[in-house]
Amino acid sequence: MIIQLEPNIDQQSTDSLLNSIEQIGYKSTPVNTHGANYLVCVGSKDFDIRTIGNLPGVMDIHRVSDNYKLVSRKWKVNPTSIDLGDGVIIEEGRMAIMAGPCSIESEEQIESVVKHLVDNDVRIMRGGVYKPRSSPYSFRGLGMDGLKTFYKICQANGIKIITEVMQVSQVEEMHDYIDIYQVGSRNSQNFNLLDALGKVDKPVLIKRGLSGTIDELLQSAEYVFSNGNERLLLCERGIRTYEKAYRNTLDLNAVPLLKNKSHLPVIVDPSHGIGVRKFVEPMALAGVMSGADGIIVEVHETPEKAFSDGQQTLSFAESAKMIEKIRKTFELRQSL
Amino acid sequence: MIIQLEPNIDQQSTDSLLNSIEQIGYKSTPVNTHGANYLVCVGSKDFDIRTIGNLPGVMDIHRVSDNYKLVSRKWKVNPTSIDLGDGVIIEEGRMAIMAGPCSIESEEQIESVVKHLVDNDVRIMRGGVYKPRSSPYSFRGLGMDGLKTFYKICQANGIKIITEVMQVSQVEEMHDYIDIYQVGSRNSQNFNLLDALGKVDKPVLIKRGLSGTIDELLQSAEYVFSNGNERLLLCERGIRTYEKAYRNTLDLNAVPLLKNKSHLPVIVDPSHGIGVRKFVEPMALAGVMSGADGIIVEVHETPEKAFSDGQQTLSFAESAKMIEKIRKTFELRQSL
Amino acid sequence: MIIQLEPNIDQQSTDSLLNSIEQIGYKSTPVNTHGANYLVCVGSKDFDIRTIGNLPGVMDIHRVSDNYKLVSRKWKVNPTSIDLGDGVIIEEGRMAIMAGPCSIESEEQIESVVKHLVDNDVRIMRGGVYKPRSSPYSFRGLGMDGLKTFYKICQANGIKIITEVMQVSQVEEMHDYIDIYQVGSRNSQNFNLLDALGKVDKPVLIKRGLSGTIDELLQSAEYVFSNGNERLLLCERGIRTYEKAYRNTLDLNAVPLLKNKSHLPVIVDPSHGIGVRKFVEPMALAGVMSGADGIIVEVHETPEKAFSDGQQTLSFAESAKMIEKIRKTFELRQSL
Amino acid sequence: MIIQLEPNIDQQSTDSLLNSIEQIGYKSTPVNTHGANYLVCVGSKDFDIRTIGNLPGVMDIHRVSDNYKLVSRKWKVNPTSIDLGDGVIIEEGRMAIMAGPCSIESEEQIESVVKHLVDNDVRIMRGGVYKPRSSPYSFRGLGMDGLKTFYKICQANGIKIITEVMQVSQVEEMHDYIDIYQVGSRNSQNFNLLDALGKVDKPVLIKRGLSGTIDELLQSAEYVFSNGNERLLLCERGIRTYEKAYRNTLDLNAVPLLKNKSHLPVIVDPSHGIGVRKFVEPMALAGVMSGADGIIVEVHETPEKAFSDGQQTLSFAESAKMIEKIRKTFELRQSL
Repeated sequence: MIIQLEPNIDQQSTDSLLNSIEQIGYKSTPVNTHGANYLVCVGSKDFDIRTIGNLPGVMDIHRVSDNYKLVSRKWKVNPTSIDLGDGVIIEEGRMAIMAGPCSIESEEQIESVVKHLVDNDVRIMRGGVYKPRSSPYSFRGLGMDGLKTFYKICQANGIKIITEVMQVSQVEEMHDYIDIYQVGSRNSQNFNLLDALGKVDKPVLIKRGLSGTIDELLQSAEYVFSNGNERLLLCERGIRTYEKAYRNTLDLNAVPLLKNKSHLPVIVDPSHGIGVRKFVEPMALAGVMSGADGIIVEVHETPEKAFSDGQQTLSFAESAKMIEKIRKTFELRQSL
Repeated sequence: MIIQLEPNIDQQSTDSLLNSIEQIGYKSTPVNTHGANYLVCVGSKDFDIRTIGNLPGVMDIHRVSDNYKLVSRKWKVNPTSIDLGDGVIIEEGRMAIMAGPCSIESEEQIESVVKHLVDNDVRIMRGGVYKPRSSPYSFRGLGMDGLKTFYKICQANGIKIITEVMQVSQVEEMHDYIDIYQVGSRNSQNFNLLDALGKVDKPVLIKRGLSGTIDELLQSAEYVFSNGNERLLLCERGIRTYEKAYRNTLDLNAVPLLKNKSHLPVIVDPSHGIGVRKFVEPMALAGVMSGADGIIVEVHETPEKAFSDGQQTLSFAESAKMIEKIRKTFELRQSL
Repeated sequence: MIIQLEPNIDQQSTDSLLNSIEQIGYKSTPVNTHGANYLVCVGSKDFDIRTIGNLPGVMDIHRVSDNYKLVSRKWKVNPTSIDLGDGVIIEEGRMAIMAGPCSIESEEQIESVVKHLVDNDVRIMRGGVYKPRSSPYSFRGLGMDGLKTFYKICQANGIKIITEVMQVSQVEEMHDYIDIYQVGSRNSQNFNLLDALGKVDKPVLIKRGLSGTIDELLQSAEYVFSNGNERLLLCERGIRTYEKAYRNTLDLNAVPLLKNKSHLPVIVDPSHGIGVRKFVEPMALAGVMSGADGIIVEVHETPEKAFSDGQQTLSFAESAKMIEKIRKTFELRQSL
Repeated sequence: MIIQLEPNIDQQSTDSLLNSIEQIGYKSTPVNTHGANYLVCVGSKDFDIRTIGNLPGVMDIHRVSDNYKLVSRKWKVNPTSIDLGDGVIIEEGRMAIMAGPCSIESEEQIESVVKHLVDNDVRIMRGGVYKPRSSPYSFRGLGMDGLKTFYKICQANGIKIITEVMQVSQVEEMHDYIDIYQVGSRNSQNFNLLDALGKVDKPVLIKRGLSGTIDELLQSAEYVFSNGNERLLLCERGIRTYEKAYRNTLDLNAVPLLKNKSHLPVIVDPSHGIGVRKFVEPMALAGVMSGADGIIVEVHETPEKAFSDGQQTLSFAESAKMIEKIRKTFELRQSL
């Protein structure tokens, strides 16, 4: 159950409300976002919702039987819009494209990608500066120095930045140099990181875990939301199955389901999803038709020389072709 | 290695050829289809392929390093076309639509579906008369009586039939009343059934196993082909994963991969794939964009009253809308 | 609901009983095994079970809410005992050991294994004569000729035979030469084969499917039982997971669960389960402690020369050591 | 390749060695643990290892072709022993038992468990004070206050503590109140946390990820080791599969494999592994026979009232019986 409070609710009404909730055996959590103040209440007893709904200070009240509450479409019917400024908006009804290398490698590399994005009217660049790697001996990213260069060049070209944050201490450090925090699949249930991201004022894209369920992804989003940050994106990036023919199994079933369950935008990552360069385009287009609000892909001037993920990274020529097709496919989808 | 033989190869050349193959340590299997005669040779030794290629009676020779040989695109570059007669052709470059109920239930039911198909210009009807059911106490289909009625009505309306064959003894029995044999996912590695289907002159659609790999599906197709039947279709219908939010996990990654590996047409089954009515349409459209040559879906006049699979079956209204969208999406794909 | 009928129930009582079942909206299936006659009734309505239980001709009545009925321990509390004759009995409280090669290869091979079994007091030999192989070009077994030789040698040495049956037509053909029919994992939901095996008077061991659930395995057993054959064994042989370090993932969790849910003996196959020779012994011993009633393993005089599965097959020396350890571990388990 | 350095290697020799490694195209990482100093070298070129091995300052050199190096048994043949002090040692050849509640709840609860452990001669208590929970609205643990109480009572009774650490900032905070840090399955690839744990002087138990591979678990351990902490334990706690009959699928195949690949002790967690109280004991005993060096289980005075995981938690009576059986089973294993 979610109770939206009147903006100007007084202390007496609050106390009385909390008392009533306690009496019906529910546990309540206050959630204050930039937009509004809520009480999220969890319990199992059946009762007449109007006994709470009619109390002073209550603006709105909704039953939400899912494990997740604030991110549920049962509570908020209108889709969430993420405005990054300068006319870059991610929301249902638009097709966001985010592209860039797996890892930020050098100033020259950033510049070449930025030029490719500008040429193709793409406004959001991806690129890792902190890289989660299975082996401690692999390249782990250029860190904050890389991010600052990344930011400077993007800023100068009107490009927004999405990059992965790996731990709590990086949240503040990275804040001024990014537009969207990305939570990687290995951190999809790093609850301390999610808590911390709930307290900042920048959007967060959460990737589904390596073998994360839809329900877990939505509950991870709930962590961020319930800490006060409403600006969330969900990302399907392939799950782990028995099939060895691809790196991961991009699970497009997740897209219509997430769109149905939640009001948050859903992004598809075909690069990690299938992990094989020549199949990235068909999976991206399939992602669009499954209902995605955006596509995030890996591109690099010379994929075979990329520091990481070269086998699933598109060249600029491949990327340009795909971007055009994504847009035409999206246009068709909107017209159907 | 696949050796295509001259149509008129004489006994002496055959003997000499077999002898040469044996001498390099390869095992050969003769395969005679309606189209041509082959020797499929399996071995691991490296040798100069021209020593065999230059022998009398050899028309063509190809190395195929995959576990499957005759179904590989390494051997046969041109896509296979399945001509069902009366202008009904399944092949790359067309979009085949197959629709119908999970189970054939009655004459009235068949007639209502046939009318729906005719109205929407769909030429192939699906419908089970032998049903694989987890429980022995569930409805197991109307059997041959049902099939004969099914055939009579479809025949009268220019509709082709695809239906599931469950065991060897049914292959002959069903032969005159069907246009495509369907091998269900539970029989995807029923090798005796596959052998038997290799000896008939009707097309066979093979569904991927519940947790079948791409490689296993292609090897199952190889069973049928190597017994003499070249007219094969592959079908992605969802795999078993840990995710409980859908019945199966439709794996569209399989589509571009199968199209890349094999010359056989690839059909997508979104009904079993995701198993939830309201998500069938987006998954069908995603299937089209992933590169499928056809879509097979479950439709019923009153899905909630269907003998089986009602929760994933579309009503006629939903089906009509989806069919139109499939066609528009396919048209766009062809134009990109 | 299972109704056990009086042996001498008359027609009038039967009719009256069937009528009563129909009136409460249940569907009934008559099941006649060698031991008794039953009506298995499926329905969802709640009613007082005594209204049926008190009717003439009803010997016993049990509610069974599982999808499987006759194989459930809710119905039959006492464990099923499988008596193969000559003192060879498989049942809870004993440790059955079945050993032998993956494939029957020659008379010499059979004789060497039989000697190994006799030396180690093992009474049941496994060995395939019909082999399910992913590729049509692989060795597919010696067939009936191999089985007859297999039978002759085992018979002469007091050894019982378990071997895989792959299709309905083989059920009768193999009947006089085997002691236990084995249904392989790829045929675990080959319902026609299960139906046919329900009509013979020899025990059947059913392997869990490649990605079969516990519930599906028990329902497959229900197919055989409901066709009249009560003499069933269940076999855990490894499932398909994302982990590539072993061939399959032997799922020992299935053992206590199956023992809890069903009255049928449970056999563990560590050879296919983990698929790596040096790990077969620890998994066999773990299988014993998990509660198995038997172990089935692959042994061969010279595993590296075996026609199939050599990498998971034990030598005679390894096998002898393991068998002794299995017995000591079982002895401990019984004493705890 | 791992190079163990002479303890007193001089700067000149070090420089010369680093230079030689660079010249053959390898990347080296210095690793200094409490026991010794190493250079871990990663590269793919083939060369004569003696050219490095004979250089001054090199004590020992080993090729390790696995992705993990320092945790590999190819490098260190002798099993690692973890001495917690006061005679509590975890190592191959002993059977460590760790028991306790899922969550620390109160002083009374800790005291009741400690008494149970003392009565049964168990020297290590588990109990969470920071709880990773899928939902932000669930009980998340008593935190440092709970840990201090936990520590005080255990300390007074000669009991060692293992508890979960969830983020970098907790590593230092918890340091003085624990004996073993536990990394939970959701943090199995939280590389920052692993880095941080590599810099402390207390043992670390790493749980396999929800769908972590064996290789990933060993590489996660490599993270800690390569940061300087050699005192590591690996824990199998169940993986995520399609099977819904248990909470997770305890994968005992991992035990002999991990023992074969690594020199680190392997602990089995049957409570999370199968997740059903009545099946915990057989899975624990199976774990012992599979080769585990320890068992970690959840126990509580009144499991049905536990704050979390009650359904898989043993009562004291059940626990006492199981502990005795674990010891007898281990005794047998050692005697075989």
